[in-house]
Amino acid sequence: MYQIPRGTRDFIPEEMLKRRFLQQRMEAVFRRFGYGEIQTPTFESLELFTAKSGASILDELYNFSDKGGRELALRPELTAPVIRCYIERLQMAPKPLKLFYFGNCFRYDRPQKGRYREFWQAGCELIGTDTPEAQAELVALAYSILKGIGLQHIVLNIGNLHVIHALFAKLRISDAVKKDLLPFIDKSQYEDLFSALRANDISQADTEAFLEILQTPDLDKIQAYVRGHEKAESELARLRDIMELLQTSFGIPDARVKIGIVRGLDYYKGLVFEIEAPVLGAEKQLCGGGDYELVGLFGGTPVAQAGFAIGFDRALLALETERFTFPSPSLDAFVIPVTETAIGTALTVAQQLRSQGLTVDLDLLRRGIGKSLKYASTQQSRYAVIIGPKELEGGTVTLRNMKDGIQSSCAIADLTAALFV
Amino acid sequence: MYQIPRGTRDFIPEEMLKRRFLQQRMEAVFRRFGYGEIQTPTFESLELFTAKSGASILDELYNFSDKGGRELALRPELTAPVIRCYIERLQMAPKPLKLFYFGNCFRYDRPQKGRYREFWQAGCELIGTDTPEAQAELVALAYSILKGIGLQHIVLNIGNLHVIHALFAKLRISDAVKKDLLPFIDKSQYEDLFSALRANDISQADTEAFLEILQTPDLDKIQAYVRGHEKAESELARLRDIMELLQTSFGIPDARVKIGIVRGLDYYKGLVFEIEAPVLGAEKQLCGGGDYELVGLFGGTPVAQAGFAIGFDRALLALETERFTFPSPSLDAFVIPVTETAIGTALTVAQQLRSQGLTVDLDLLRRGIGKSLKYASTQQSRYAVIIGPKELEGGTVTLRNMKDGIQSSCAIADLTAALFV
Repeated sequence: MYQIPRGTRDFIPEEMLKRRFLQQRMEAVFRRFGYGEIQTPTFESLELFTAKSGASILDELYNFSDKGGRELALRPELTAPVIRCYIERLQMAPKPLKLFYFGNCFRYDRPQKGRYREFWQAGCELIGTDTPEAQAELVALAYSILKGIGLQHIVLNIGNLHVIHALFAKLRISDAVKKDLLPFIDKSQYEDLFSALRANDISQADTEAFLEILQTPDLDKIQAYVRGHEKAESELARLRDIMELLQTSFGIPDARVKIGIVRGLDYYKGLVFEIEAPVLGAEKQLCGGGDYELVGLFGGTPVAQAGFAIGFDRALLALETERFTFPSPSLDAFVIPVTETAIGTALTVAQQLRSQGLTVDLDLLRRGIGKSLKYASTQQSRYAVIIGPKELEGGTVTLRNMKDGIQSSCAIADLTAALFV
Repeated sequence: MYQIPRGTRDFIPEEMLKRRFLQQRMEAVFRRFGYGEIQTPTFESLELFTAKSGASILDELYNFSDKGGRELALRPELTAPVIRCYIERLQMAPKPLKLFYFGNCFRYDRPQKGRYREFWQAGCELIGTDTPEAQAELVALAYSILKGIGLQHIVLNIGNLHVIHALFAKLRISDAVKKDLLPFIDKSQYEDLFSALRANDISQADTEAFLEILQTPDLDKIQAYVRGHEKAESELARLRDIMELLQTSFGIPDARVKIGIVRGLDYYKGLVFEIEAPVLGAEKQLCGGGDYELVGLFGGTPVAQAGFAIGFDRALLALETERFTFPSPSLDAFVIPVTETAIGTALTVAQQLRSQGLTVDLDLLRRGIGKSLKYASTQQSRYAVIIGPKELEGGTVTLRNMKDGIQSSCAIADLTAALFV
């Protein structure tokens, strides 16, 4: 017996129905915002990912040599491949470019609840603009997608990396120390951060103020704190514009400023944002994104870019945890030839109904009417269409409503209309 | 600069639009026939594929060891993974099981026109029945999918492996010689086959008769030829039933018997069929399938099974070659804030239209009305919605039909209705 590889999953039909439903809802929102879909190969040159994320990513990659000696890796994320494709094929396209993707990614990680070695991401890249309205629209898109799939409770936090850097500059913290401290901020480990700042000779008062600014949603407080730091002030003004547009133009009342978002990735610049589903507890982050610079790093002509990625599996888990009602699998009709002589007519009837767009199955095992009705039940068929010698003679079928068991005779010619009720 | 791996492809939005269109059309037909979707991991244990296809497949596989020392391979096809999943999770499900899939596969092959190292397959497995009506429905499904995507000219050939074996038995050809001859039949290389048969001391008359039977669509002729071979006679009767059901129940007039289909795979048993698109020339095969036995080989409880796979990339190529008209990308409206003061209102208007299900983009570069109209043209927008100081004051917009350039004033509240025309 062969087993599924560790950390990967099969999705059987009832699961795929949920996944396709979710994918289609997400896709619909991307398209309504004017985004076009892009798809890149499942593997890329290994160096594409090490160039973006450094050699440390090697531990988490599925990398291998192909039979021609090329060093390849299964993609761990989709931003690098999309930017690679942009540089190869799309640099001359009219700007801004709005690209969305839906794809599987791979990480050699210890499998645990909600974390798999093959997982799915939905996301997008916005290339060629960094106006506040463009960034507000990007954040609104992420929010609209997660609301659009049916999530009731999500939390949107928005920060800015330039402001964080200004906070560190104000405390005269060196780049080396900053690098050690950022992970605490990234993981909201404020007690550890407190100890680390104190250990670096930052006064208790300065440390407390710093921690407050990381967590407060009050833009005025943050502005007072960074006053005199020109870049931070202009970026805060931009953040204020974005918050204003989100509230008034996009009708998102609950976006919240949180300066303590760092996204743990070196190529982010200004805007950063995250969306969480509190219902998921510790592994609650559904979406992360922001403003970054990869095109230049990858050898293209530098251009503004921003984007986000949504953890598809986690978004599905959040919906399930909120007890969302997914569409259930069902048949419109299950056709039952009672005798062998009725098989041809049963197939004809099934085919006729399918050609009208109905979902129809039929008994393919010659198992008789009792067992067939039981099977039709397991397939959640709305109707059974029974064809025996009597029906064959009259050119009719017996139509049985599977919910209440009520049966009636129906001419074959009228069957489609009867089922569309 | 980083390059896409050799033999793989990026799909930019205009290509993805075609691919999703095709996928959705295929999916719709599978579902109408009562099939449910299944998805398996991108990689599997290497031994799953060598068990199915023998060690010779190693040359074509992307295989590698993961960091835990597991021997894995990117899937070269989807039947083995689906059967593996069936054995692990679905053996107890009510029969018959109708499963379809849509997925990418990988082969380390020399890249050439229509052949890629990463390619897509749509296909299905029917598990738990092998009645003639079940097999006829399976063939009809493959045919309906390829017709349903819009192909005008396809050729459906149906054979039976038991009959081929009877032909060889009649000529007293040994298994070893048969193995050498099957590839000639598989590739329709009838001249080479003729020479090989003659070289094996088969008389000219017997060779000619043999070759005729491989190619004739005439069931009576084939029946006369294999008379006395019990298995071949019963299988021919079954083939006759299937042809009859295809014609009368499924309305497929042009299915054709062709005994010379062997499908080159050891695990096929009786029914085999292929669908071709002659428009593609040498690489014309779109679909192959039949009746086979893998569950037992993989350690499950033996059960009847059949299925087919459609080459998605080739089906798309055939449609393009037939000059099929695909849906084109388009926006319902492109919103243009003429001045900075109109940006908030422009976003509000865009968001309002999107919430009604319209596809809407807007100028995110503050580039003024002339350049924005030009950009709206490149995005094939039906309308431009222009908002300047005058419009802001009156609570209106200027609606411009991008086709004829006719402009009219429209109250913001009436805009959705105006665009739904």
